[in-house]
Amino acid sequence: MSTTCLLADSPTPDVPEDGILRLYSMRFCPFAQRVHLVLDAKQIPYHSIYINLTEKPDWIFEKNPQGKVPALELVREPGPPVLTESLLICEYLDEQYPLRPLYPRDPLKKVQEKLLIERFNAVLDAFFKASDGGEMEPFWCGLDVYERELARRETLYFGGEQTGILDYMIWPWCERLELLKLQRGEEYNYDEQRFPQLTLWLERMKRDPAVMAFYMEAEVQAEFLRTRSAGKPNYNLLVKET
Amino acid sequence: MSTTCLLADSPTPDVPEDGILRLYSMRFCPFAQRVHLVLDAKQIPYHSIYINLTEKPDWIFEKNPQGKVPALELVREPGPPVLTESLLICEYLDEQYPLRPLYPRDPLKKVQEKLLIERFNAVLDAFFKASDGGEMEPFWCGLDVYERELARRETLYFGGEQTGILDYMIWPWCERLELLKLQRGEEYNYDEQRFPQLTLWLERMKRDPAVMAFYMEAEVQAEFLRTRSAGKPNYNLLVKET
Repeated sequence: MSTTCLLADSPTPDVPEDGILRLYSMRFCPFAQRVHLVLDAKQIPYHSIYINLTEKPDWIFEKNPQGKVPALELVREPGPPVLTESLLICEYLDEQYPLRPLYPRDPLKKVQEKLLIERFNAVLDAFFKASDGGEMEPFWCGLDVYERELARRETLYFGGEQTGILDYMIWPWCERLELLKLQRGEEYNYDEQRFPQLTLWLERMKRDPAVMAFYMEAEVQAEFLRTRSAGKPNYNLLVKET
Repeated sequence: MSTTCLLADSPTPDVPEDGILRLYSMRFCPFAQRVHLVLDAKQIPYHSIYINLTEKPDWIFEKNPQGKVPALELVREPGPPVLTESLLICEYLDEQYPLRPLYPRDPLKKVQEKLLIERFNAVLDAFFKASDGGEMEPFWCGLDVYERELARRETLYFGGEQTGILDYMIWPWCERLELLKLQRGEEYNYDEQRFPQLTLWLERMKRDPAVMAFYMEAEVQAEFLRTRSAGKPNYNLLVKET
């Protein structure tokens, strides 16, 4: 699949009828990135269909009435059903494709992981505010929880000796630390002394195959945000590279 | 356990050390009600400890740093851990106590149920607005989705021939239809022609043992809201009855 974004007048995408999952996505969306990470980590084949969110193609509303992305079309199921909500899609994928499980099996460990993912909602809100020129300290305070948690677990990843669901669900905003650095310049005050475990974890995560498959340079993310702020988001910044 | 609400200066509650789950709750909170419904439907024994949310007792912050309810303390587990977030608590309970399962087993059916629960967030927001004197139509529009879904399923309950997770997760706001009627008087325009399936479902649900165990008359709910609007919420309205 091309990464060209599909516009309002685009015909239904010409995806082969091969029974392979279709992910309606947006290349710069951190929530969509969560689903790409899980699909890639579990090595589940899928087609990516990137959507222009400013001028959504009409057919996306046939796929899901709210026109949201990420949306996963289960082409082999009767309907076919289209799932939305990044976390729910990831849970479904982990249950439906049991190889390389990402959630813990034990109900208590599983709910504790989900609570840490839920709690990250406040952290990602703080990220968006910091990225938008607001205070950075609330974002660092949010990350303190995950620094302590990783220190407590004494493992390479939140998932243990390999990546797990919590690693991938928080990664999109951690990848964007470099974007924040670029945006905030000298005001950027990430402190390696404050986040010793997360600093090592960030380097490990950058070498993870699923992370590498969807990694985006901060300069490209910044350029997309610039075009969006200017009222003309360029969803196709990466097209030449693919 | 008494239903007396515990105030800021209350000592840690005197609950027997009997290994039984402890639910920190608030008697008038629809989110807490979800957890009571699931515990009662699955016949899991638990102690209810009702909290005064306006003047929270200090020890609740030791149980969970955000001081939230509902919160479920797993007294038999090392820690002991305290779970928050009504939906996550309910999922945990259904996995940990497999008798009388409430979620579908099939991953696709399960995620579809979770999507309908997620989608109800907009409906309950619309309920609160209508209850607060705002427009009622957005709430009815939200319920249209569930009317159509129940008609499509052709079952007695969303869960099939018996109640399931979706029935219980949306019930607290459906129980409050009578509260809305009381609050809005002649403006209340619930339409049985528009909601034929939901109308029958409401009557069936009112006879469900778990629903009956936590059911509250609209007059009592209304009286609580009146005391809250007046700045002096009376959390103990039900104390005499227990």
